[in-house]
Amino acid sequence: MTLTDTTFEEYLEATRDERLESYKAFLRIPSISALPEHRDDCRATATWLAAALERAGAEHVALEETTGNPAVYADWLHAGPDAPTVLVYGHYDVQPVDPLDLWTSPPFEPVVVGDRMLARGSADDKGQIHLHVAALAALLETRGSLPVNLRYLFEGNEEDDARHLRAWLSANRERLTADVAVISDTSFFEGNLPAITIGLRGNAYVQIDVQGSPVDLHSGTYGGAVQNPANALAQIIAALKGPDGRIRIPGFYDDVVGLTDAEREAFAALPFDDEAWRAHSGLGSLVGEAGFTTLERIGARPTLDVNGIWGGFQGEGSKTIIPAHAHAKMSCRLVPDQDAERIFELIRAYVAEVAPPGVTVTVRNLHGGSPFSMPIDHPVTMAAARALAATFGREPLFAREGGSIPVAADFRTILGLPIVMLGFTPPDDNAHAPNESMDLTNYELGIRCVARLWDELAGAVGPDGTSGKGTR
Amino acid sequence: MTLTDTTFEEYLEATRDERLESYKAFLRIPSISALPEHRDDCRATATWLAAALERAGAEHVALEETTGNPAVYADWLHAGPDAPTVLVYGHYDVQPVDPLDLWTSPPFEPVVVGDRMLARGSADDKGQIHLHVAALAALLETRGSLPVNLRYLFEGNEEDDARHLRAWLSANRERLTADVAVISDTSFFEGNLPAITIGLRGNAYVQIDVQGSPVDLHSGTYGGAVQNPANALAQIIAALKGPDGRIRIPGFYDDVVGLTDAEREAFAALPFDDEAWRAHSGLGSLVGEAGFTTLERIGARPTLDVNGIWGGFQGEGSKTIIPAHAHAKMSCRLVPDQDAERIFELIRAYVAEVAPPGVTVTVRNLHGGSPFSMPIDHPVTMAAARALAATFGREPLFAREGGSIPVAADFRTILGLPIVMLGFTPPDDNAHAPNESMDLTNYELGIRCVARLWDELAGAVGPDGTSGKGTR
Repeated sequence: MTLTDTTFEEYLEATRDERLESYKAFLRIPSISALPEHRDDCRATATWLAAALERAGAEHVALEETTGNPAVYADWLHAGPDAPTVLVYGHYDVQPVDPLDLWTSPPFEPVVVGDRMLARGSADDKGQIHLHVAALAALLETRGSLPVNLRYLFEGNEEDDARHLRAWLSANRERLTADVAVISDTSFFEGNLPAITIGLRGNAYVQIDVQGSPVDLHSGTYGGAVQNPANALAQIIAALKGPDGRIRIPGFYDDVVGLTDAEREAFAALPFDDEAWRAHSGLGSLVGEAGFTTLERIGARPTLDVNGIWGGFQGEGSKTIIPAHAHAKMSCRLVPDQDAERIFELIRAYVAEVAPPGVTVTVRNLHGGSPFSMPIDHPVTMAAARALAATFGREPLFAREGGSIPVAADFRTILGLPIVMLGFTPPDDNAHAPNESMDLTNYELGIRCVARLWDELAGAVGPDGTSGKGTR
Repeated sequence: MTLTDTTFEEYLEATRDERLESYKAFLRIPSISALPEHRDDCRATATWLAAALERAGAEHVALEETTGNPAVYADWLHAGPDAPTVLVYGHYDVQPVDPLDLWTSPPFEPVVVGDRMLARGSADDKGQIHLHVAALAALLETRGSLPVNLRYLFEGNEEDDARHLRAWLSANRERLTADVAVISDTSFFEGNLPAITIGLRGNAYVQIDVQGSPVDLHSGTYGGAVQNPANALAQIIAALKGPDGRIRIPGFYDDVVGLTDAEREAFAALPFDDEAWRAHSGLGSLVGEAGFTTLERIGARPTLDVNGIWGGFQGEGSKTIIPAHAHAKMSCRLVPDQDAERIFELIRAYVAEVAPPGVTVTVRNLHGGSPFSMPIDHPVTMAAARALAATFGREPLFAREGGSIPVAADFRTILGLPIVMLGFTPPDDNAHAPNESMDLTNYELGIRCVARLWDELAGAVGPDGTSGKGTR
């Protein structure tokens, strides 16, 4: 198949409205994995997705029970023994939607605004799952077969806790034989330039709980004679990172692989304008670790960020109390070769060391995932680059992204697969923020690109995962 | 009148049940001044109180409009030109009730548990207002007259913002001629020992707002390259106070009057057990400014406490964002001769100095009140001491309390009155916390003590505010 495959193209044109309605239906189910009250919605989304795969022509469609929300498995394995097998991954769960008042329309009532689909999950990651299913349906409808064998694995806890799928992968790896994994959960580069993600940061996500007295205390009657849990929490957080942006936790940088001169040159060569990025983000100025550029700080350096903090009185006016307790959610983005579990232990030990007296401090491991990277010149990376160039009309960039997709490291470690991180969302998709959106041109071309990728992989990868014909 | 005034005592015994029902009715109205949604409840409470004063025999009863909730004024001025005039103060507004789940019964459904009235406001300060009204009713019913002229002023913004009453006092001071003010908004000492408060801390209450990007940012896509408002807030708060408990704001201690040897001896002589106090509060250890005892830290040293902190994701699970903004409510208890306005300016200037780059930080003045002290040997203090000894059966202690009652300083400054701080709540009343309660023995004896105080003041204070007959 090529772009001159008129039957395929005509089919996609003719079914566009119907496809958008299906996309909207998928987005309407509020599959927020972080909030227990949406547990049933997550299952309903999995059920919806399974039905869509079935309609598209996939086989062995099943809801796979995990320790979290069900994963959806499906396959199409009729390309023959000489064709490679591709494992396609996405996640149907989405981020919470607060602050709700900043959305211009309700997050689970998708609307098309201009050339964008606006809804929670439109980009991250329901939109990217949906275009994979659309590509399968269109190919089977117009060609009746595929040049590769496909296994689909769509999970429901990516935004929540990678440990659920990790455990399932370990238990089911015999069933998941493949030659390459394609993960569609990343975005294009600044300026909406096609990009292949060759590096991702890991993540160590913790909660710090500081407990003082059993109840709030009157700040007049007790103030000055007792430790204040909120002040103590501020003291702990402030101790973790210096004004130079360096994380002060002993051992934190031990396993960080430094940038080579070639890598720094590659970062510098990317088309990126600090000032434009700053202005677009609405920030007054950019602040980060001394000695690194913005792209290096995001792509190749670890972080320590508070994701949420709370304790005591948050209402209007004033309440004169010493809060009984205070809390923070905090996460560190990790880079090769940091290990999420080891970093958690280092955080816990250092928090215990810097915690002031008079309060009880605990650190809990909420979730973690290891960082990941792939060589640019790997055959599967090059196949994806050719597919992007053919469909989007320009050569892709190779980017190390700041986000974390723990499953990439898990596919590598548990399944031993080479990985293509091929995502299609625009870089200003507001993933994890109000007014998340998907560029519908990217969505439509994404369908064509996926179809092209199967052709490219069929030529590039042997059934044993080695490079096949047609690659350098 | 004395305790052998059998008619008065019999009347109080006979009306006890009815009085408790009236007390409960007063407590049922949720007069939380800090929350705008309770504005109408505050007015309803004022209306209820005005009617109760009217029934008790007070005259010129009126709701006085202020810039906040209405104050309630009433008087009884028939003691004759040679008798002193007493201005009685209390506040009918109460603290918010969160965390609600720690209350053993709903905060606005008063119940008697053992010898305690359990409800928000039972002690602070509706209970103390109610006993004043009960004393007036009992005296007029059994004796038909009083030995002093009385003006009652009960306000509705003490827990919220002292500026409302302060402005009203300035505008109405001509109407408020008196010889002494009696403020009933304090408590007894540890062990429920009768106490007269001769010192109170002031308060400077601020809100710190830290703004980063207009919306929450993905912590992977942006983390490392932008300032995190919650980390920045922690850094600011941590900079304000050292690990030695000393506040680091330049100039903060400039106006603090040091303790004399005699004052330190007086503190040391008070019956107080650090370990028992710690255990009762449920704290693991006591922490405060180096070089001072617990009572000195509470009574004579200024503080800096976070009252509430919030920003970003507070739900269950995890959300990987850099919050758009973070906030803290923070207050400093002040001691003579610190000035609330000046301290606010010092806080604002120092926060601006220590705020990290990349965020916008503002400090707002939510409310303030100056500290206050009265000499032990003032005739009105001595009159109150005699009234307490006669009714509670033991000599009172003289205490410098940690709390703040800005109106005490305002009565001194605006009205030029000597002040008696005579409150009756037990020290473990849980004011400002869940399960606030009032000891009903204290409440009942408080009524007798107020009646006795009018006799003592009639003999002790001349109509011009100078000491009269019968005092040293």
